[in-house]
Parts: sequence; C-alpha cells; structure tokens
Amino acid sequence: MDIVPGALLKQINSPEDLKKLQRKDLHKVCDELRQFIIDVVSVHGGHFAASLGVVELSVALHYVYNTPYDQLVWDVGHQAYGHKILTGRRDSFATNRKYGGLSGFPKRSESEYDTFGVGHSSTSISAALGMAMAAKYKGENRKSIAIIGDGSMTAGMAFEAMNHAGVADSDMLIILNDNCMSIDPNVGALKEYLTDIATSGTYNRIKDDVWKVMGKLPVGKGISRTMAHKVADSIKGIVSSSSNLFESLKLRYFGPIDGHNITKLVDTLKDLRNIPGPKILHIVTVKGKGYDLAEKDQTKWHAPGLFDKITGEIVKKSFNTTQPPRYQDVFGHTIIELAEKNDKIMGVTPAMPSGSSMKYMMEQMPHRAFDVGICEQHAVTLSAGLATQGMKVFCNIYSSFMQRSFDQVVHDVAIQKLPVVFCLDRAGLVGEDGPTHHGCYDIAFFRCIPNLIISAPMNEQELRNLMFTAQLPSTDLPFVIRYPRGTGVMPEWQTDFEEISIGKGRKLKDGEQVAIISYGHPGNFAQAAIRTLRTEGINPAHYDIRFVKPLDEELLHEVFSKYDKIVTVEDGTVVGGMGSAVLEFMATNNYKAEVKILGIPDRLVEHGTLKELYAECGYDAVAIAETVRTLVGSKVSTSFKLQVTNQ
Amino acid sequence: MDIVPGALLKQINSPEDLKKLQRKDLHKVCDELRQFIIDVVSVHGGHFAASLGVVELSVALHYVYNTPYDQLVWDVGHQAYGHKILTGRRDSFATNRKYGGLSGFPKRSESEYDTFGVGHSSTSISAALGMAMAAKYKGENRKSIAIIGDGSMTAGMAFEAMNHAGVADSDMLIILNDNCMSIDPNVGALKEYLTDIATSGTYNRIKDDVWKVMGKLPVGKGISRTMAHKVADSIKGIVSSSSNLFESLKLRYFGPIDGHNITKLVDTLKDLRNIPGPKILHIVTVKGKGYDLAEKDQTKWHAPGLFDKITGEIVKKSFNTTQPPRYQDVFGHTIIELAEKNDKIMGVTPAMPSGSSMKYMMEQMPHRAFDVGICEQHAVTLSAGLATQGMKVFCNIYSSFMQRSFDQVVHDVAIQKLPVVFCLDRAGLVGEDGPTHHGCYDIAFFRCIPNLIISAPMNEQELRNLMFTAQLPSTDLPFVIRYPRGTGVMPEWQTDFEEISIGKGRKLKDGEQVAIISYGHPGNFAQAAIRTLRTEGINPAHYDIRFVKPLDEELLHEVFSKYDKIVTVEDGTVVGGMGSAVLEFMATNNYKAEVKILGIPDRLVEHGTLKELYAECGYDAVAIAETVRTLVGSKVSTSFKLQVTNQ
Repeated sequence: MDIVPGALLKQINSPEDLKKLQRKDLHKVCDELRQFIIDVVSVHGGHFAASLGVVELSVALHYVYNTPYDQLVWDVGHQAYGHKILTGRRDSFATNRKYGGLSGFPKRSESEYDTFGVGHSSTSISAALGMAMAAKYKGENRKSIAIIGDGSMTAGMAFEAMNHAGVADSDMLIILNDNCMSIDPNVGALKEYLTDIATSGTYNRIKDDVWKVMGKLPVGKGISRTMAHKVADSIKGIVSSSSNLFESLKLRYFGPIDGHNITKLVDTLKDLRNIPGPKILHIVTVKGKGYDLAEKDQTKWHAPGLFDKITGEIVKKSFNTTQPPRYQDVFGHTIIELAEKNDKIMGVTPAMPSGSSMKYMMEQMPHRAFDVGICEQHAVTLSAGLATQGMKVFCNIYSSFMQRSFDQVVHDVAIQKLPVVFCLDRAGLVGEDGPTHHGCYDIAFFRCIPNLIISAPMNEQELRNLMFTAQLPSTDLPFVIRYPRGTGVMPEWQTDFEEISIGKGRKLKDGEQVAIISYGHPGNFAQAAIRTLRTEGINPAHYDIRFVKPLDEELLHEVFSKYDKIVTVEDGTVVGGMGSAVLEFMATNNYKAEVKILGIPDRLVEHGTLKELYAECGYDAVAIAETVRTLVGSKVSTSFKLQVTNQ
Repeated sequence: MDIVPGALLKQINSPEDLKKLQRKDLHKVCDELRQFIIDVVSVHGGHFAASLGVVELSVALHYVYNTPYDQLVWDVGHQAYGHKILTGRRDSFATNRKYGGLSGFPKRSESEYDTFGVGHSSTSISAALGMAMAAKYKGENRKSIAIIGDGSMTAGMAFEAMNHAGVADSDMLIILNDNCMSIDPNVGALKEYLTDIATSGTYNRIKDDVWKVMGKLPVGKGISRTMAHKVADSIKGIVSSSSNLFESLKLRYFGPIDGHNITKLVDTLKDLRNIPGPKILHIVTVKGKGYDLAEKDQTKWHAPGLFDKITGEIVKKSFNTTQPPRYQDVFGHTIIELAEKNDKIMGVTPAMPSGSSMKYMMEQMPHRAFDVGICEQHAVTLSAGLATQGMKVFCNIYSSFMQRSFDQVVHDVAIQKLPVVFCLDRAGLVGEDGPTHHGCYDIAFFRCIPNLIISAPMNEQELRNLMFTAQLPSTDLPFVIRYPRGTGVMPEWQTDFEEISIGKGRKLKDGEQVAIISYGHPGNFAQAAIRTLRTEGINPAHYDIRFVKPLDEELLHEVFSKYDKIVTVEDGTVVGGMGSAVLEFMATNNYKAEVKILGIPDRLVEHGTLKELYAECGYDAVAIAETVRTLVGSKVSTSFKLQVTNQ
C-alpha cells in the first residue's frame, strides 16, 4: 500500500524546500507531517507517540536553523521521525526499522542531518556542547541545539553536561521537551519541579513580562553581543525573583512555551538564535499529540506495533492459548510470587516499569517496588544501599542500559559482595532497535568482575528457578540473570520453584563426537539443530552451562574428557564471552580440543527481526547444525533447511 | 616512632566514649584529632587535606548521632580518617594503606561503623537513600547521613540520587561539604553557584532569619511531624525568595554554616536530626584546615607523601638524574608536543589535571585543554561531540574511573567510529589505594567492544609513538592507550616520534621452547625474568603484543607455529583479557599449545605497594621465571630470587 504524503510535504525533499514556504503554510506542513507519521507507523510499526509530540518543533527547527550547518542533536532519537522525513528520507521512511532499511534512530552514516547517533538517553547535551566548543575554537558561527525530554533530564549525564555548559561560554541551545513522560510517566523531584513551573500562574505572568521584553529584541544577524547580553540580563532580572534550577547552573532559562504553537516556536527560536551563550528553552508538549488515543494512553502508544489508524485497534499477533509468555512477564509475575513469601524482596527499575513488567509488582506492592527514573547508576547503588540493610533487591535493567552502571556494579556491589539480584532483560540481540540497544556485551563485561554469580535461563522454568535461588538467604553474593527480549518456549510456565545449585549446569543429552555447550535461551536453537542432525545420523551431546560464573568445572571436565570437538553457543559477543570462558578452562586444565565459538560477531550488528539477525550472526539452529556438520566432516547439503520453531 | 594521641583522644575508643564528654571539651578533641592525623600522615603517608577539613564534622556527627545504628556514608572516603580514628581504629591507624593494614577508605569488612565502601566519588547519596528507604520499610528510626563534597556533587550520579531522594519521603540528611576543591580546584556551574550562595550578604541575612526560627525549634525525640513541618515550612517561606537548586529538587535546604565551628555544627545537627524527610545541610570548610601549608596549596597537600610536620618539607624520593619519568608526565608533555604541530588536538580530563598531568597543557593551551569536573560520562560524550567536528581529542581517564563511562564509549564513540583517543592512566594495579582504584578490568571490558583500537606501551618511547600514531589523520577509529601508575624505564624518554602500524606487535627476541607474550609495561618484568632464565640455560622468546585489538595475527601465527608452550603476561584480570584473546586466536586457527595466563587473579586484590601486589598476584619477574621453568620442566630452585629493577 502506497502512502501518499500531503501536497506540501510532497514538495519537501530537504529543509531547503521547507524554508521556501511561507510561515502561514507551516501549520499545514505540521498537519501533513503528523498524518504521514500516523499513516506509516500504523502500517509499518515503530515508535509513535514521541515523534507526534515534536512535529511542530521539528518543522520549526528546520525552518529557522540552517541545517545541517547548524547541528541538531535529538536525545534518545525515537522522537526524530519528523526530522527524518523532512531531511530527505520521506520516500524511504516505510523501510524504517526494517532489515536493511532506515534506522529507527538518527544515525550519522545515514544522513548528514543526523549529527549524532542517539538511542540511549541523555547524551545530547554533551554531544551538542562538544560541537559548540569546536565551533568556537574554529571561529565558526555554527549553532548547536540539543533537544531533550524531561525524562532524559533525570539521568545524571544530562546534569554533568549542564554543569559544564553553564560555564563553557559556548553558543548552544538546549530545548527541554517537557511532556511528563518517558515510556512510562516520569518520576522524581525534577518532574514535579517542572510541573510546578509549567502550571504556576505567577510564573507564567512573569514569563509574559519576559516575552514582552523578548518582543523588543531585534532579530537578525546584526545583533550585537552587548545588546543580547542586555536583553538577557533584563530577562534574568525579571525571572530571578523566581529563579530556577537551570539558572543556578548558569544557563539562561526561557519558557515555558506551548510546543504545539508553531508560530510561537518559530518566533522564539528566531530570537534565541541570536542570543549567545548557553541557554535553555522549556517547551511543553503532549506525547502522542494529534492522535487522540495516543494522547490518552501514552505508554501503550509509545511503540504500539501495527494498528488501524481509523479505529485505533492494535493488531494483535495471533496468539493461541498455548503461546509461551514473554520472559519479561515471567519475571514480572514471578517476583510477586517470591515477594509474597519473602518480605526482604524489593524491586527497582530505572524507568522501565512496563518494559520490564515490574509494573505488576509496583501496582500490587507499591512500597516494595520502585521506578526511580532514567538513572541506571543510582538504581544500582540504591540497590546496594538497600542490600546493606538485609533487603533482597531485584534490580531490573536492560542489558544495554546496564552499560551505564558498570562501575556501580563493580564498586558498590561486587567489591562489597552485596547480594543484589540483577535481572538483565533484553540481553542479546533485540531486533528492530538495532546496535544501540542490542545487549551484546554483558556476558563479557560482567564475567571479568570478581564475586559475581552470572547466569542465564534456557527457558521460563529456569528463569523462575534462578530467581528463586537468587533470593534465598543462603545466596550471599550478587547474582546476575540475563534473558532475552521476546517469548520463551513453555506455554505452561508456572512451574513449582526448585533451588538450583549455584555454578551447576545441566547435561541435556549425551552424544557422540561433538558436544554443544549452550548458554541461556539459544539452548533451544541447539535443541532444534540436534533434532535435524539426528535425522542425518549425527548425534551431538548437549550441555546447558547455565552459569558463566562460577563455571561448572565438573561438567566441563566431563565434556573435555569425552569430546574433542566442541561448539559453544551464546547470545552475546564472541569476544570474552562464554566461549572464551570455556577456552580459559581448557587452557588452565591443559585440555586440547577443537572449539568453535558461535555468538554475536565482533562487529556492529544492525537492525532487523530477531530471526534475520540470528541467521546473519550465525548462531540460529541452521548455523549450529552446519557447524556440527563441518566438525564431523559430514557432507549433508546446507540447503537442507530446518524449521526453527522457537526464536 | 610512637605517635601519642592527646589526653582526650586517648580515651576515645569508640563514639560511646566521645558522647560521654562535655560539649565544651569538643574543641579540644578536634585539636587533638587534627594533630593526630598530622602526626600519623606525616610519618606514614596517605591522604591529608581532605580529612583535616572535616575534623569538626567527624566529631560532631559521632557526638550527635547514634552510630553505628545511625549510618554515616562518607563520599569518596579519603576524608574519613577522623571517622576511623574515632571508631576504634586509633591505635591501628599507623597501618593505614599498608599491605595487610587498614584501608585508606571506609570498608564494610573493616568496621561496623563503615556502612558503605567508598572510593569512587558520588555514590554516597544513593547508598544512604537505600539505607533510609530500608529503615522506613522496616519501621526503624534509624538515620542515614551522606557526607559529600561539592566536587562529588558534579557527578551525575549525585544528581540522580537527589532527584529520587526529593520525592522518596525517606528520612535522610545530605551534608554538602563545600570546600571548592576536588584534588584540583573544582570547576563548573555548580561550584560558581555554591560560591555565590556562600558569599552573598543577602543570602546570609536570610539564613540568619532561618536560624532564628531554628532556634525556636524544640529538640528531642518528642517533636511531632506537624511541628517539624511547620518549622520547615516557615524556613522555606523565608528562603524561597532566594530559592535554590536543592529546593527545586524538593530537598529542604539549610545553610550555609561554618563547618569548623564545632558548637554550631553540634547544635545544627541536633536540630536536623529531628526534622523528617530529605534535607541538605550546606557547610563551608577549608580543605587542609589547621595545617597552614595545606590550606594554601590544597592540591599539593591532597596526598603529599611523607613530610616534616614542623617545616612542611615534603620528603622527596632520592631521584638521581637518570631516573625514568612517570608515565603520566610523558603523557602530559607529549600531548603538548603533538598539539603544537596538530591544531586539531584537544585535551579533556574529568577532574584530574594534576593526576593525569593534563595540567601542563591546560596552562600552556587553555583554549584546547579542559578540566570538566568529576563527570566521566560527560567527558567521553563531549569528546565524541568534538570528534564529530574533526577534533582529535585526548580524553584522559584513570582505568578504574573509565568504568563510569563504559556505555558512552560503546554508544557514543565505538558505534559511531569516532576517532577519540582514550588515555587510561593508572591501568593495572595501583598500589595503596586498593581494590576500588585498581585498574583491573579495562582490557576485558574494552576488548569486547567493536571498532576500538586498544594498545598498551611497554615503555615511554612506545607511549609517545602510540600517542603520535593515534593523532594521525589516517587513524580514523577510537584509540585506547593504557599505561600504569608510576614510572617507566627510560631516563632518556624524549625520543623522536615514529608511526606504529596499528595492530602490529614487536618480536623482542627469538628463543627456544617457550614464548612469552607480554602486553604493556609488564614486558619489562618479562625481560627481567628472561635475563635470569638465561643464566640457567633457559631461553624463552619474547613478543610484545602491543595491541590487544586488533590482534597481530601474523605475529601470533609465528608464535603458535614455532612454540607449543606460551606464557602471557598482562597487568589486568586473567578473565577475558589479553591471554583470553590469545586463546580465542588459538581456537579460531585450531592451534593446540599449552598456554599459561599470568595477570591479576579473579578475586579482589587488596592494597599494598606495587611490588608487593605484583608478587602476590604472580606476574612479577620472579613469577614469570618460575612459570617458564615449570613449563620447560626445569628444577632450578625457586629460592633463586632475581632482582626486579623496574616495577
């Protein structure tokens, strides 16, 4: 189905075309851009509500600023669909997030308008400040603009950057897009503070005075630094009686203004373009703006999947009742079961109550489960603080976001041997979100830390039993459980709890010639491979190592004693991961076997479906089977494809 | 030489003893405690100025609060000497930072008064908040107090914690110890803001009013929540006309007060103890207080080494003119040489201008080298932003602090292939600072990231050539150079620059039977071992791998073709490090050799001198020689010790 852009949007192949339009036409451009996003996302999927919220801002920025010479940095980046459509990617936008297609996030290699790759939150101010400082050093009159949500502002990195920007005397603008939302509603003192500002009558009255002053500001290139300073100072004078957090950090604060008023946005940006120094514009927007249902349930419509744009009905995948659950939901329900019996258990999530399914516990046990905002560092050390008081904290952080709290895991948890439980959701490849979100590295970066117990469940029952084991009083070390995005393999997942011996793997089957050692969910790919191989007369053994730390040495001695051809399979980088742990064991114990390590290759893996990416990376069932065939010297044709029933 | 504590201090074996004293005696306790710190540190070494600055605070806290039931968390922790001396460690304090002795930082396993291990900055608020939330959940009236410097406040983690604390409704106190210093003078907007507060006449007048109100506050256990709220609200009313950053974050703000006025501190803390909810007390102190020279040159006296406490003369190690330089100084001078010829070069350090020797460039090229404060995350992404504009940024971060910016290296630098140069000082064991500061993990945690070039120089010339190579226009990938704390091996270090082929190691010598592959500075240990072994008729080959990524495959093919016994040596963890890279190469290429991996073992390594720790960990020259002997089956006695001339 061809999606036809509106009459004006159709003519906009670059911001140059946008700039040719008259200001009175911008409303229409916004309407058409919004409609185009709705049309495409409803049919092709992707992030939705965030981009709808910044339609006017996207148009205003490209209308006012001289992009790409002036540089826009879109924090998190899934808000940048409008920006992409306006910058030459309208006709390719239907390939968004598809294998080989456009990235769902700004990406430097994709367009000169994408000045900085974004995906994780709160990087934009640092990046834009770097650009501004370089411009100053080079004597260029280039402008740098960071567009950042109030949710992203809660991450410490944004604060670090503002603390520097305030004194760096560089020409940059921070646009605070205040919509009170991350994926879930924002939390924290900053959010309350911003709401206070935005709703305070007094404050708005003061701001009106400010804008009267602003109205007198001569615009255009000729404005002198002195004049700008004078105006800015007079504004500051008015505002200071209600001085605010940002001014404490020496940023000139302007706002709040309505982020859906395109005329005001254009006027304001034109004025601000000519005011030197670090400054912040606070705009208030509605996430999902212009699509009624999305405005009303912003979490649901953050990335709804496909939907009927008229009725708003979201296309459900045809689940039958025997469909296995998502791992995240197994976590979400299991933690409640455990917490009902163990009053030491608490739950902590940094801004992912829906994504991690911690929301169920937050609803049922609001005093024991907390969303602490986008702040992985704090989430980990807070959990450590709770653990010093005897609490068993399940701190749930996506694998790729755990990269933000590596030091806290080392310094505050592992060195002190505090028994925090880390549940790493989205560990391994994540599919359409691509390289910024793939959880490729956690096996490698955690394995080098002393005192950690590091595990991965092969299925739902294993996840439940690992969680059960992790919360036992006898488990007195930090405990990592990594599991992937998506569904498991057990429709009947609510099994009884059973303690697992820490550091003990499982032999799933004996075999001949070759042993497969798998870690976590890819064990299911190995099982599928084995089913096919057996039809060819090849019968590999299969071990689920289960813990990458401590290693099951007994199991490995058995493997290396019986087999001299070994295939390892993991949903993580092949550099320093589980396969390397097996090699280290082999070297230490002076075994000599042929070991083939399957996993995520040592290069960036782009976006696509999980199935496409597993195949590309060579650790799906087909690839495992082929590796075994090669090891045993079998000639069975690779064109004999097997069905991979479980991802 | 025995150091004798003063008459009062001699009686204080725990805070219980302190509490028995009358308030009028506290001045004397402070004087004696200060003198004791001066006496011990002058003779035994350690951190100095920070602890002198919080003598009064340490006494006041243990006098007012019911420690260890009430919980103190000392940020960074090198300020906690007074705390240690007051909590039962007076007589063992002379073992501070010595092998087997007290840790230089609070440490949970050392004392029940050390509630949380600290070493890296800015963790205290998160930890104390965790403790406060647990107390609330358990219904305990336990108090939690975080003591944090204004330098540590610039790290984003502190902001994340305050953003949560403001809304968590837990009973905690943050004491902001404002002395305008980290190791070097603080930078950033926050510092300027705090200085504004502390020096503003108007503000202080308002604060006087506040304290008048405070004076009316009934103290003691019986105070009602309502009363406290009422008082707090009235204070807030007075303050709000000059409302501040912390109140924006919903923290009740008190101060600033003189942190050296013990009477006022005790009064204030007694009052605050009875005010519920999250609150912040801003005290102003002088780093080095009471030791004149330290007050005047706080950076020099942060950790001066041994000194004559009367004359203030710092004991210089007897350097002769042929002493090799410190690696950090080779960095500090070489970057200037390079920057003089390449105008793209910039320098970034997060609060370590002295420690990294970036200060030389900051002095000579103030527009091209920046101290951005304690904020490793921002430092990395700022560098990435600069790199997008064609700048070659040398971002210098200690190995263990680089743990704070792991995600930024992945997400903002490596994924985008931005050619930032990371110089990791203090990589490997660091000696007396112990496990929080050892740079054990960087080889492993960086090696798993695609697109990085990762190198280590074996000596000064190599460091210079690696830096030279990293800044060449043709080097278009991120480039890591890791080097250790301490001195190199080349008194004549100012060699001419020479480009190094990226991914190329060096064969230092051919040999027989065994090949040693070393990475970085420990190559010198290997050379020392080889000198000894040759006297025994053992002649191992020696290769300096130089790059752990990309690997020199040609060199490794040569090694594995010629030798079937291999020893790898690195100043990093044996889990996932250089040795594992060699094993991965071996597995990929189906070689079968006996490989012994020497490096930092997979457990915590405590503090001590570098020499003691290298020996303990088994990768000094003695251990390397012994490993080679074992491999070749030599019977030479291990009691034959060789001289290790270079650490």
